Amino acid sequence: MARKNIKDLKRNEAGIAAAVGILKQRFGEKFKTSLSLREQHSHTTTYLRSQLPDAVVWPQTTQEVSDIVKICAEHKVPVIPFGTGTSLEGGVNAPAGGISIDLQEMNAIISVNAEDLDVCVEAGVTRESLNQHLRDKGLFFPVDPGANASLGGMASTRASGTNAVRYGTMRENVIAVTAVMADGRIIKTANRARKSSSGYDLTRVLVGSEGTLGIITELTIRLHGIPEAIAAGLCFFPTVEDACNTTILAMQSGIGMARIELMDVDAVASVNRYSKLDLPLQILLLLEFHGSQDGVREQQKSFGEIAEEFGGSDFQWAESTEERTRLWTARHNCYWALKAEAGEKEFLTTDVCVPISHLAECVTQTQKDISDAGLYGPIIGHVGDGNFHAALAVDLDDREEIAKAEEVAEKIVMRALSMDGTCTGEHGIGQGKINFAAIEHGDGIDFMHAIKMALDPDNIMNPGKLFAV
Amino acid sequence: MARKNIKDLKRNEAGIAAAVGILKQRFGEKFKTSLSLREQHSHTTTYLRSQLPDAVVWPQTTQEVSDIVKICAEHKVPVIPFGTGTSLEGGVNAPAGGISIDLQEMNAIISVNAEDLDVCVEAGVTRESLNQHLRDKGLFFPVDPGANASLGGMASTRASGTNAVRYGTMRENVIAVTAVMADGRIIKTANRARKSSSGYDLTRVLVGSEGTLGIITELTIRLHGIPEAIAAGLCFFPTVEDACNTTILAMQSGIGMARIELMDVDAVASVNRYSKLDLPLQILLLLEFHGSQDGVREQQKSFGEIAEEFGGSDFQWAESTEERTRLWTARHNCYWALKAEAGEKEFLTTDVCVPISHLAECVTQTQKDISDAGLYGPIIGHVGDGNFHAALAVDLDDREEIAKAEEVAEKIVMRALSMDGTCTGEHGIGQGKINFAAIEHGDGIDFMHAIKMALDPDNIMNPGKLFAV
Repeated sequence: MARKNIKDLKRNEAGIAAAVGILKQRFGEKFKTSLSLREQHSHTTTYLRSQLPDAVVWPQTTQEVSDIVKICAEHKVPVIPFGTGTSLEGGVNAPAGGISIDLQEMNAIISVNAEDLDVCVEAGVTRESLNQHLRDKGLFFPVDPGANASLGGMASTRASGTNAVRYGTMRENVIAVTAVMADGRIIKTANRARKSSSGYDLTRVLVGSEGTLGIITELTIRLHGIPEAIAAGLCFFPTVEDACNTTILAMQSGIGMARIELMDVDAVASVNRYSKLDLPLQILLLLEFHGSQDGVREQQKSFGEIAEEFGGSDFQWAESTEERTRLWTARHNCYWALKAEAGEKEFLTTDVCVPISHLAECVTQTQKDISDAGLYGPIIGHVGDGNFHAALAVDLDDREEIAKAEEVAEKIVMRALSMDGTCTGEHGIGQGKINFAAIEHGDGIDFMHAIKMALDPDNIMNPGKLFAV
Repeated sequence: MARKNIKDLKRNEAGIAAAVGILKQRFGEKFKTSLSLREQHSHTTTYLRSQLPDAVVWPQTTQEVSDIVKICAEHKVPVIPFGTGTSLEGGVNAPAGGISIDLQEMNAIISVNAEDLDVCVEAGVTRESLNQHLRDKGLFFPVDPGANASLGGMASTRASGTNAVRYGTMRENVIAVTAVMADGRIIKTANRARKSSSGYDLTRVLVGSEGTLGIITELTIRLHGIPEAIAAGLCFFPTVEDACNTTILAMQSGIGMARIELMDVDAVASVNRYSKLDLPLQILLLLEFHGSQDGVREQQKSFGEIAEEFGGSDFQWAESTEERTRLWTARHNCYWALKAEAGEKEFLTTDVCVPISHLAECVTQTQKDISDAGLYGPIIGHVGDGNFHAALAVDLDDREEIAKAEEVAEKIVMRALSMDGTCTGEHGIGQGKINFAAIEHGDGIDFMHAIKMALDPDNIMNPGKLFAV
């Protein structure tokens, strides 16, 4: 089970040339090798360096994905699945070249099973387009990472977002996937039953595997009824610690929050500017409650009492749907707001997740690390889950600043691990956190790698991600 | 990835003799080879034939489990983990002999993290003893299969029970496990963070793997606050279809039932006799609602309106805690009630799970199969999940009756699969459903087996389960 160093990844020039020739012939207009498209398909939204694939192909069906993988398998050429390209950890980079498989044209909503609260979609469907489609059915899909990501990509990185505290992450919301495996075979991991004890949980083997075991081409996912009543509100706190302690106590009291989001003052300031809001420049908790009319009122009251204990402001409630949408859109655009704030700089983002009892301490110490290093690094978080992000702005021409940011990022992760947490709550490992994953999992990483080698012996499935191979 | 026929499983006599000698020396009083203990450790509660291990060992620590597995690995001797021996699919049988590792003495509750709503336990802790321990903390662990099973065994079979409709199964409630792998190495699959995107989901690789990939020795599992208000009640229906349709509509309406259990008339009759109740001999839904006082009242009202539409009786509410406990104890003892009813006969039990839209049809047709075959086969089910059980009584000396029961069981499973369901909702594959798993998963079973071969190349971990190897 020995792992090789990341430097061992070599381009297979002859294989790539052969595969490119065959695929060009086979896919015609749906196969491109232009530099701009290859650049676009290795864009990682972060400070990580782009590594271009040799070509991009746009399959229309699972069978076409299978055909592509079979051709690449024969010639031992890497395949890199591409959804919307919003990975924060270099997930779509092609360190040994190969073929980017862009699934955006596989965007059919195959069947909505309203009575079973599930839907089958192709992997290229984005979360926003799915919810648009579902709106008049009284149903919604809750998992909402910052980007309008594709559902296939979200499954691959085990994404979550603001609703996870109530509705779970992709781990809980994916019922089954159809995937093309490394030999080109197509499997469906499960039927539509809500639960099953039938064999290994291949669904959850693939969810979070970041394209390294198979390419997800279709998904069956859980839907939820749009609640009878929704109330969103803002509550401001004197310190991050107060906001975290309010969150902790509210979670422990079993108040069923649907969303509970933290923004520090830097984040609030940039959101104000980007989304033209005028929120007070204080530590913010942005909340949402779902339920019956009475249920939501109960939750609001209970939460308000806890917030008051920790010096929280009176609530500002977003009464109308429009106002609520405006607030959450601003929250979802937070990453772009920070980007705008950072001007020419890029971001080294990190996200960690700790048991909620450690949250206040973890966030407070992280803030101190960032300010001690003299960096601009707003903190935002899905604090109901104990999950938060730090976005550290770095000038790509300033090697010293990059080194400083990397040092802070390492401190953040090592602290989270020391608090019984994880090196990433929702962004994934990609290239950026390979070493941290190895530290987090100890011998476990060897067993992960054994699974990788068993299912993809030639290492053609998104190589150079998750493992130092 | 070729799979061998189950007949290829051979006893490794020399290896077993060597391992038995070494283990006897090493474990002294905690190692036994008496026939009665070996019989007890292959008792499967069902009609499946017992296959005895060569010895039973009672480790006290994870390190001791590791020592045992290392000795067995060196001599290529099977290890079969044993919790409470309540598998319904031959999970603890030893078709090629080997060592039964009884984890019941590893029964420490290591740490209750009340503020994080989780607990770390050793694998031998039973669900009832955990809940006893938690009672005065206002917390509980919801997963409740019929038996008072061990939590390690429950994780291994991805167990669920009556609360799964609201709280999920072991899949959702296990945060991390410590496991001894086939080479004796000890891994911990995750820390205590509520969510993580860090690498493959080894937790869920092991949950449901039935001891074929590793032996779970410790678990971190999620706890839930005991709700402010609980209401349990009985509602009787003219037909199974009416009861199922009530369930379907209640689920679709988003009424947050905590439990919704179906019993057919045969099941009600035997529960009456066994638990000394006097329930009317009609189709029964046994329900429970959790929430705030107001929330529970809302749920009761909404459910009552739906039940009325389908001819449901007025509710009989169990007002006191004692009355509620009595009802649910009767439900949990249902299997033993049926056993008592069946006299000398044994049971061929099967459990399937279908999308809820197919539930009424699936249960109704199953009832017809059973009565057409002239068998005694009560149906009970966790119908909120689309999951139900049929227990077919068979005289072990009557080969014709066994053949009839097997034919009916096959029909039940094949119908569930044709309805986009699974061949087992919560019992697992074990030995009894190996062929059905192969049908359900198609090529997927090859990838499961590739994982098995990668993590356990000598096939010493509970061999002869899940796969026809």
